[in-house]
Order: sequence, then C-alpha cells, then structure tokens
Amino acid sequence: MRTLDVENIKDIARGSAILATGGGGDPYLGMLAAVRALEEFGPPVVIDPDEIPDDALVASPIMIGAPVPLIEKLSIGPELVTVYRALDRYFEGNLYALMSAEMGGVNSVVPLAFASRLGIPIVDADLMGRAYPEVNLVTYTLFGISASPFALADERGNAVVITAADNAWAERIARATVVEFGAIAPGFGYPATGRQVREAAILRSLSHAESIGRAVREAHARKADAVEEILRLTNGFVLFRGKIVDVERRTARGWSLGEAVLDGQDDFAGSRMDIRFQNENLVAMRDGEYVATVPDLITILDAETGEAITTEHLRYGFRVIVLGVPCDEKWRTEAGVALGGPRHFNYDIDYVPIEELNAARV
Amino acid sequence: MRTLDVENIKDIARGSAILATGGGGDPYLGMLAAVRALEEFGPPVVIDPDEIPDDALVASPIMIGAPVPLIEKLSIGPELVTVYRALDRYFEGNLYALMSAEMGGVNSVVPLAFASRLGIPIVDADLMGRAYPEVNLVTYTLFGISASPFALADERGNAVVITAADNAWAERIARATVVEFGAIAPGFGYPATGRQVREAAILRSLSHAESIGRAVREAHARKADAVEEILRLTNGFVLFRGKIVDVERRTARGWSLGEAVLDGQDDFAGSRMDIRFQNENLVAMRDGEYVATVPDLITILDAETGEAITTEHLRYGFRVIVLGVPCDEKWRTEAGVALGGPRHFNYDIDYVPIEELNAARV
Repeated sequence: MRTLDVENIKDIARGSAILATGGGGDPYLGMLAAVRALEEFGPPVVIDPDEIPDDALVASPIMIGAPVPLIEKLSIGPELVTVYRALDRYFEGNLYALMSAEMGGVNSVVPLAFASRLGIPIVDADLMGRAYPEVNLVTYTLFGISASPFALADERGNAVVITAADNAWAERIARATVVEFGAIAPGFGYPATGRQVREAAILRSLSHAESIGRAVREAHARKADAVEEILRLTNGFVLFRGKIVDVERRTARGWSLGEAVLDGQDDFAGSRMDIRFQNENLVAMRDGEYVATVPDLITILDAETGEAITTEHLRYGFRVIVLGVPCDEKWRTEAGVALGGPRHFNYDIDYVPIEELNAARV
Repeated sequence: MRTLDVENIKDIARGSAILATGGGGDPYLGMLAAVRALEEFGPPVVIDPDEIPDDALVASPIMIGAPVPLIEKLSIGPELVTVYRALDRYFEGNLYALMSAEMGGVNSVVPLAFASRLGIPIVDADLMGRAYPEVNLVTYTLFGISASPFALADERGNAVVITAADNAWAERIARATVVEFGAIAPGFGYPATGRQVREAAILRSLSHAESIGRAVREAHARKADAVEEILRLTNGFVLFRGKIVDVERRTARGWSLGEAVLDGQDDFAGSRMDIRFQNENLVAMRDGEYVATVPDLITILDAETGEAITTEHLRYGFRVIVLGVPCDEKWRTEAGVALGGPRHFNYDIDYVPIEELNAARV
C-alpha cells in the first residue's frame, strides 16, 4: 500500500498512454482530473493485488465510446457518482477497491481520481494490460468473469444498469446506450473478488505504466533518448519512423474508426506505413506487410518528446515513431487471440507475435 | 375485487384490441397466454383503483417494440420473470399490484397472466386508455410521474434497468435496447403509488374493454350488429367502410411503420381513405381530409365480425369498417395534445376532436 503524489499521477498518465496503443483518452485530460481530485479528496492509495482479501469486491470505472467527442466533453465527475450509485444497489456498500479496466490516459487516471473521492484504494492491475475498444475485450472474459452488472450514465441524469447474458452482449447493449448518450459516457462494472483479480487480471500494470512514465520524464530531464527507455521497459520494437501524410477518421457506432498513412524517414526512408484503428491502433503494415497486429500493442509516439499520440490527435505532418510492444501472455493463448486478435476485428489473418514478425529486422 | 374467468379474459382481449387502435399486439396471442396462466396459476384478481392503499406500489409490464416480429416470437414468460426480478431490487418486495400500461390485445392481457403468476392483483386502469408506440406516451408523463426504473429483458438472459432523466429519455434508451434485443422485448416499469394511480391513470379502462368485448360476443350470439354495440359503448363514429387496396409496412427503429389505403363501399362508395400507422393508427384521411388523428382512437374492424385488425395483420382485400373513438379527456388538455397529438408524430396539423371533424356527417 502506498499513496500517489502529483508526480506519480503524471507518470501514470504518461506511461499508461504509451500502453494505450492510441486509445484510452487524452492523458492530459485524465491527469488534470486526477490532480484536481488529489487536491480535493487527498492522494489515491494503491494496493497490490495480493493485498485484496479473497472475497472482497473490486470494480472498474471506464469511459466508453469514441474518444473524439471526449475532447469537448469531459465533465465526468457527477456521472461517475451516478454510475457508482447505480451499482451500489447491487454491491450493497461492499465495494473494497477500484481498479482500472484498461491502461489508457484517461481510463488509467480517472479511476485514481474516483478512488480518492470514494475514499477506497485502487488496485495495481487492470483488465487488458493495454486499451481495447470493447467492453468484452478484457482478460476477465477469458476466465468467464462477467462484466455485469455494468452501469452507464450521462450528464443529463440518465443511468442504465446492464445485466448481460455474456460479455459480448454487455458490449452490444452498452454500445447502443452510449450512442444514445452522445458517443461517450462513463461506465462502471466488472465486479470481481480479490481471488478473481489475482487469477484473471493483468497484475501490477499500474506500476508498470508508472515506471514507463517516470523513465520518460527522467530521460527528458537528462536530455536522453526517451524512446530507448520505453523500448527497454516494454521489450518493444521501433516499427517505423516517419511523417504522417494522411489521416482518415470517422465516428460510427460509438467508435472512432480510421487509418493513418506515414512516409518513412531516417532508416525507414522510402517506406510507407498504414495503421488502422478503432479507437485503438489495431494493425500496422509496412510496405504492405503486417509488422504488428492486436493483441500486441502499436503506439505512435511524438518523435521529439517520446509522448504517446492518441488516435484522435493524429494530424498531417506530425513526425512520429511507431512502437510495437508484446502484449501480456494472457492474450497469447488460443482463447486470448480468438477474443482480442485480428480476426475479431475482421482482419482475415493469423496472429503472429510481434517478436516473430520483426525478428529479421532486429 | 373480483376474479376473472376464461370468458372475462377473452372479452378483455377482444375489447382492448378495439381500444388499441391497431397496436398492442395480436389479441389472440395475448388471450392464449392469459388462459394458459389461468390454468397454471389460477384466475387473475382485479381490483378497483380505489382499493389500492395510498402508498402501495403498482407497476406495469408491457411489450415494447414492433409487433410484426411478435407474431413469430411470443415466449414472454421467462423474460417477464427476468424484468420483474430486475426491478424487485428496486421495489424491495413491496409491489402491491400490476396494471396494464396500455389497452392492447397482448398488452392488456399479458399483465393479467403475469399477475396470476405473481399472486398479486391487477388494477382496473391503464396509462393510455388506448395503445401508443412510445414509453413516454402515457398519462403519467402529464402528471410528472416517471416511467423509471424501467426494466427490459430478452430470451437470452439479458436485462437492462433504465433510470432516465425523464420519460422521453426512458423511451429513447428503451428503444435502442429493444432494437438490440431483436425489435420486441418485454418491459416492466412505471412504478407509482395508489394515490398517483388514482390521479394520473385512465381509471376503469380494463372493465371498459371487457364490456366492449362482452357486447361484441353477445351481439355475435344473437346475430346482431356488433359494430352498433361498439359505437354505443365508445361514443364512436364510423369513419369509413371499404376494402383494403394497398398496405405498405416497414420495420424501423423498433416500430412497424406504414400506411393502408382503402377504397370505399356502401355509403362510402367512390371515396378513398388513407390510414398511417406507427404500430398504432395515427391519422385517417378521407378523400384528402383528416377525419381523425391521435390522440383520438382509429380502429380498423373486420366488416364481418366486428373484431379489431391490428396493423401487422392488415392485408390487401380485407373488407373493413374504420372506427373513430374519442380519447380520454386527459389527452385533450393542452399538455396531452402536445405529448400525444399529431405534431408529436410530425404531422404539422392542429388536433381537432373527432366529434368536431365528423359533426357534419353525423
């Protein structure tokens, strides 16, 4: 158990955005919300997964929807209280701790803020070890743990509690609701016991994100190469260096869908990269060959600062480095690849681990 | 307080279908469900609105969605139990009675069946005095009484509890959910106290429907004119006699939308009638002039039998009588017309009571 200060929270925002593979929401907005909460409600308390009693209840708040409108609409405080209250009828006051559902700029840091507000700890773990664009794309699904009851709310005072037949249905119903609410809304769900967390979650991912964020910050301070630090901490690969020459993006069904095209620079001069995304980056092709696909992580970094650029911020002319990072082993099982791999997103290709795809180049 | 036998239930199914103005679901299916429930769980008990204690809780089950698929999909027993259980967490076991939300073949009779199953009474009242295609189109809305919490379920085991900012939002969220569930689903909501029921519901509409159904049955038995009996009991008008020469119908956003065109016969020979519907009949035009609009009731009867034909059963060649019936006074207030009148359905016309529209002809 330890408390987080402002610098820790900034590190988590920065590091989780790198793990968020383009999604999870603008880390700057998430960080602001967390720092405000720290000032008002005191510092968040982080506990290790081993510190949760076996039968104690943990649940996860998460913003659901397309990140584009989130830029204009970040008043998530009151709605988070609404979703929490909507589920308290189910939890009967027995919620022991919160946990991030995903590693993502907003979605890693807002739970910290909300834990402070509720006066309960946050668990050093999450349900993806990255960000994913669907409610069902969590390691809990692989272990048969329900996302339900799952609550959603909006700023008008609407709230919905979903008890779904399975996590795919939770996603389907949540998505339809979020679209009515205006493309993005705070959710709250994934109740599980301490025992289930230890079996089925991605453990210690919050401190992993924090260590990445800290390494980037420290590299900046000593004017060292932040990307080298990220590669070292994530076992990652540089997939591409170049300039964004085209971005197509549309918001549909509560997602931001699109593609970015990059022209190579430096040792990638003469090459081209296509990255397709659904909130998160899904696949990266270099000169027509896949060099990374889900469930592995594809992150676009600002070439100057090493800061992650979320998909809603991609713009023509940005100079970027594309990073590929191996996903957690839980996603590399047959069931994990079936759930979160390329075919789930309608890419008719087999998943090949990023280490194999990039063995030649390395 | 009285119990209903099979003949009472059949009368209610038949009479409520006439008040359902083309919607409310196939009365034959509703009647079958009710008779089965009577055999299994004993006869439904009807209470007068005056018999509900002031603070006792009453709520309403109702099928939401497009009636077309209902024809193929009437396994509403288990899902009704699911929606009831979903709300019991909110009612904490204090539900005193059920009440129909609308007068409609299925939607008047299924609550009887479900009341038998739960072993609680059904109130002689409803929330429309007719059928309407939206959750918010109830007299409760006029009195500021919330439809929430409102539960929906499907046959897969999915359940959703909506707590909406207002009844228009309850409709919007419910509609999105129903579309995901497959165009029709059982709902349960409109919790209100006995005091609220007496102020804001349409009182004694169940026995009114029963008296209409009984009159039709008795007219059949003595080979008398059933339509005359219906006109007498409803203060209704014959708007048209003729043959259906065209029906267009499509299912969209959880509704059955369309239009029927009729060629006149007998004293209407040479005339034409257009009836537009959204589950329920909304407006009737004779030779281009409106002769009836919502909130007044427009019902198409089989010319031979005087039985109501629901919009999903309208077919080319049917010989029909179109009946217009004045709505309840609660719908004729300024707020009532604004909520349930022609402009709500995007007809840019003022509401004129059916008695005025048909004064000349009478």
